[in-house]
Amino acid sequence: MPAPDQPTPDLGRLIVQGADQPGIVSAVSSVLARAGANVVSLDQYSTGFAGGRFFQRTAFHLDGLAGHLPTLSAELDEALGSLGLSYRLIEARKPKRVAIMASKSDHCLLDLLWRQRRGEIPMNIAMVISNHPDLGEDVRGFGIPFIHVPVEKGAKDVAEKEHLKLLKGNIDLLVLARYMQIISGDFLEEVGAPVINIHHSFLPAFVGAGPYQKARDRGVKLVGATAHYVTEDLDEGPIIEQDVVRVSHHETTPDLQRRGADVERQVLSRAVTWHCEDRVLLNGNQTVVF
Amino acid sequence: MPAPDQPTPDLGRLIVQGADQPGIVSAVSSVLARAGANVVSLDQYSTGFAGGRFFQRTAFHLDGLAGHLPTLSAELDEALGSLGLSYRLIEARKPKRVAIMASKSDHCLLDLLWRQRRGEIPMNIAMVISNHPDLGEDVRGFGIPFIHVPVEKGAKDVAEKEHLKLLKGNIDLLVLARYMQIISGDFLEEVGAPVINIHHSFLPAFVGAGPYQKARDRGVKLVGATAHYVTEDLDEGPIIEQDVVRVSHHETTPDLQRRGADVERQVLSRAVTWHCEDRVLLNGNQTVVF
Amino acid sequence: MPAPDQPTPDLGRLIVQGADQPGIVSAVSSVLARAGANVVSLDQYSTGFAGGRFFQRTAFHLDGLAGHLPTLSAELDEALGSLGLSYRLIEARKPKRVAIMASKSDHCLLDLLWRQRRGEIPMNIAMVISNHPDLGEDVRGFGIPFIHVPVEKGAKDVAEKEHLKLLKGNIDLLVLARYMQIISGDFLEEVGAPVINIHHSFLPAFVGAGPYQKARDRGVKLVGATAHYVTEDLDEGPIIEQDVVRVSHHETTPDLQRRGADVERQVLSRAVTWHCEDRVLLNGNQTVVF
Amino acid sequence: MPAPDQPTPDLGRLIVQGADQPGIVSAVSSVLARAGANVVSLDQYSTGFAGGRFFQRTAFHLDGLAGHLPTLSAELDEALGSLGLSYRLIEARKPKRVAIMASKSDHCLLDLLWRQRRGEIPMNIAMVISNHPDLGEDVRGFGIPFIHVPVEKGAKDVAEKEHLKLLKGNIDLLVLARYMQIISGDFLEEVGAPVINIHHSFLPAFVGAGPYQKARDRGVKLVGATAHYVTEDLDEGPIIEQDVVRVSHHETTPDLQRRGADVERQVLSRAVTWHCEDRVLLNGNQTVVF
Repeated sequence: MPAPDQPTPDLGRLIVQGADQPGIVSAVSSVLARAGANVVSLDQYSTGFAGGRFFQRTAFHLDGLAGHLPTLSAELDEALGSLGLSYRLIEARKPKRVAIMASKSDHCLLDLLWRQRRGEIPMNIAMVISNHPDLGEDVRGFGIPFIHVPVEKGAKDVAEKEHLKLLKGNIDLLVLARYMQIISGDFLEEVGAPVINIHHSFLPAFVGAGPYQKARDRGVKLVGATAHYVTEDLDEGPIIEQDVVRVSHHETTPDLQRRGADVERQVLSRAVTWHCEDRVLLNGNQTVVF
Repeated sequence: MPAPDQPTPDLGRLIVQGADQPGIVSAVSSVLARAGANVVSLDQYSTGFAGGRFFQRTAFHLDGLAGHLPTLSAELDEALGSLGLSYRLIEARKPKRVAIMASKSDHCLLDLLWRQRRGEIPMNIAMVISNHPDLGEDVRGFGIPFIHVPVEKGAKDVAEKEHLKLLKGNIDLLVLARYMQIISGDFLEEVGAPVINIHHSFLPAFVGAGPYQKARDRGVKLVGATAHYVTEDLDEGPIIEQDVVRVSHHETTPDLQRRGADVERQVLSRAVTWHCEDRVLLNGNQTVVF
Repeated sequence: MPAPDQPTPDLGRLIVQGADQPGIVSAVSSVLARAGANVVSLDQYSTGFAGGRFFQRTAFHLDGLAGHLPTLSAELDEALGSLGLSYRLIEARKPKRVAIMASKSDHCLLDLLWRQRRGEIPMNIAMVISNHPDLGEDVRGFGIPFIHVPVEKGAKDVAEKEHLKLLKGNIDLLVLARYMQIISGDFLEEVGAPVINIHHSFLPAFVGAGPYQKARDRGVKLVGATAHYVTEDLDEGPIIEQDVVRVSHHETTPDLQRRGADVERQVLSRAVTWHCEDRVLLNGNQTVVF
Repeated sequence: MPAPDQPTPDLGRLIVQGADQPGIVSAVSSVLARAGANVVSLDQYSTGFAGGRFFQRTAFHLDGLAGHLPTLSAELDEALGSLGLSYRLIEARKPKRVAIMASKSDHCLLDLLWRQRRGEIPMNIAMVISNHPDLGEDVRGFGIPFIHVPVEKGAKDVAEKEHLKLLKGNIDLLVLARYMQIISGDFLEEVGAPVINIHHSFLPAFVGAGPYQKARDRGVKLVGATAHYVTEDLDEGPIIEQDVVRVSHHETTPDLQRRGADVERQVLSRAVTWHCEDRVLLNGNQTVVF
């Protein structure tokens, strides 16, 4: 038995969000029912009875989905537009186009490449960009282009221009897999796709550089990792996923880095998977993860 | 801001299940929308595209809910009856009527009593029945009736008759909080309410008596607990919730019992809470937990 | 089979710490061996090969332990004094004398009282002090004195004087079980016993008041609790234990408080247990937990 | 600061086990102290006060360790032989020689290869043997020999002879990384090294083939994995490590396999790491993990 949300040519996803009000679920499901679609999973969340914000993700099966899209869109425009709701209608068979940026650490990058090869994440990795050449051989071994864009001191804008040339229009998602450079606000505005970063601490603890050393100094008993959307405010973007692992006085800072690396790769892989399955909705600076 | 599923006079829950087919979600939500209800949370699950089983739990807010129930029921009968689906329409403001059976161990029992006092579980504990007198003072300290029904060797049927006299018609749920007696099939048939048990192992490992000793002998590195509905087949009923805790070679069998007791009380409390919030649906010998 | 560290009349514990150097383990174990003691558990930790700090906890069995103490002490003075090491020699049969301070929340307090009644923590709870009368009946139900010491606005020093009168010389440990008052540095100096506090967040995230609201606002995916020794710097003392629980967008701030309460009571109970078993050693602002 | 147990030319490990009796720790540490060794970590465990079994692992630093080994051995023979204790004296700088057997699944195998390349596990992987050719390219990409030994139906003894020719005398440990063939008792006797297997369930639940399907059918809420030493009794050998991951009704059997694969690779990597650091001691059919 295939998993209900397994991408097939005929699986669609409908994301709806906006101001909560009675009748939204009914309006959405009526449109789908009239088209002959079968709802295979539906998640709904509202921040409150009155004056709240409404979020819904529906996965549905509809024979010949691609052909029905124009009609479905027209009906959704009519049903939802008057309610002031926005929606996205997605064909699940189309994997997200993803680029990954990395530096010298391989753990997060390799885990993503390996999961994509196994078919665990519905994405196509278009390219890997790095400010160091070290990981080239590994990446190309997966059959994926590796592009080395050095970042010269004081000339980040040059590098970012090259990045934008490679990325703009070509991707649906950019993943920073331990890319050790700060991204400019201009870049974020221009790249035209959401950016996910993995921070190597349990945010908001230990923001900034060197979190494992800070964790060691503070003597915490758990270390963690946080995957979040990147905004101009460093380490302050909406959190998608977090996890922790238990440590003790025995662990030195390098030990914490090793233990943490395992958490980082899991947390980032989960966040990327959920994003590529259209499970992550933005609610201000928070996320709703269905 | 109240939690969306916080019981208020006007919060309703609608549970629908049956053979999957296109249009169910739409039919259900249309009925609710016509009544002016606002869906505050909706969970839906289907075991497959075609020929699958369908499960849905909807929590909704409707001003003056009690007065709308007859109309809602009539409309649901019409909308769902023709599709061969069954449904339950529940007023969340009515807590479940619960009885607890226990023996000498206090940890699961006290955790339930304490959580009910804090308002964490939407239930009224009507009585506690025990085959031993030991826990009477603790229970009565919470203002709850404690009834001692000894079980004489070879005369369990006598005790069960007394149990049934106390329970039949008076409860919506019976919880076995480490009640160390086997329940007969006749009792289960007659009691007229679901029965939840806590088993002190990670089922299906270590069925039967003495699971912690068996766990020690096998040298496992985790011990656990399982909350399940009771059926005639001992330790084989549908599992609602499970959890584990890490142990090591240092732990003796009494240590495992102590460590396990913490897991038992958490697992049982979660299972009872979810049941009382109508989140647990039966799917053959499995559960769907929304 | 009793747990090796089960308090019996003849179980002793020896804690040694100081500058690391070759031969310490040998010196300690020679003293114990000459006395005829049997080591039942030994934990040792050193922060580095050279110039490091040394920590050791040894649990041993010695028939007629009390009678051997003067000789053991004399031999340890000789063996360890010359190495510049400090030590504590403890009879495990003597439970720690503990006072608990609480306010209105019962979850941490009741968990400690209940575990002590079950014999899970080697302590005698001498008294519970509260700035509110609410929890008196619960505490006295366990047969433990409850003393209500109101804290008038601007007159904390009056209350603290009364606290000190009750506590000084009478306790080995003071536990703040969600006591919602800041403790003065003077009090800490005078009380003559270590003080353990439970902070309702995963420190160093969300220091100060209202951590669950802050966690909700930041949209974290895990909430936690931290047990630490109290120092003059609020929320900055040495961490003994931490844990977390997964939450989602569904949880409101009151939900987080409820979920967090479960973690708080577990974390505090573990920290108090470990302290009372002499497992927690101070290493600057960090702890070594054996 | 290097981790205390970081292999350096001068780090030694001493494993002692046998019948418990007073004076063992002292005897061992005296030998080490006389040689000028500095104990950097010491773990000791005893199954009981009298008639128990004794286990000790000591890591120590001794300048010019290799040159001291003959003297140390002679002294340990004298000190421990008379007490009927066995011991192993190990130079930590020598990584374990390891062979891995796999079939078609890559997740456990790749995780071990990758961790060894990162320097996380003190082992040299001498070769990978598989009954299928599929993983050859991946393995050789890590610079490690891959040997394809097909197992013809009814001719397992032929394959095992070839395995033994490759392995005997060449390895300190054999790891079965999802090798889907049953190993004969004769092979285990002849191979001359311990064998670690990863079982894809939380043993003793779901022994034998198809554990994820069995887990789905039983409706469990957690799936797990178990790393154990291989004995003639299938799935019954001493357990080294276990872990679990939470699942729900949503997960199909392939989903469980995917979720479980993550746990399998973590559990196996931890077990192999601990074995290679000489942290795993056998106690009958159980393990002591220091």
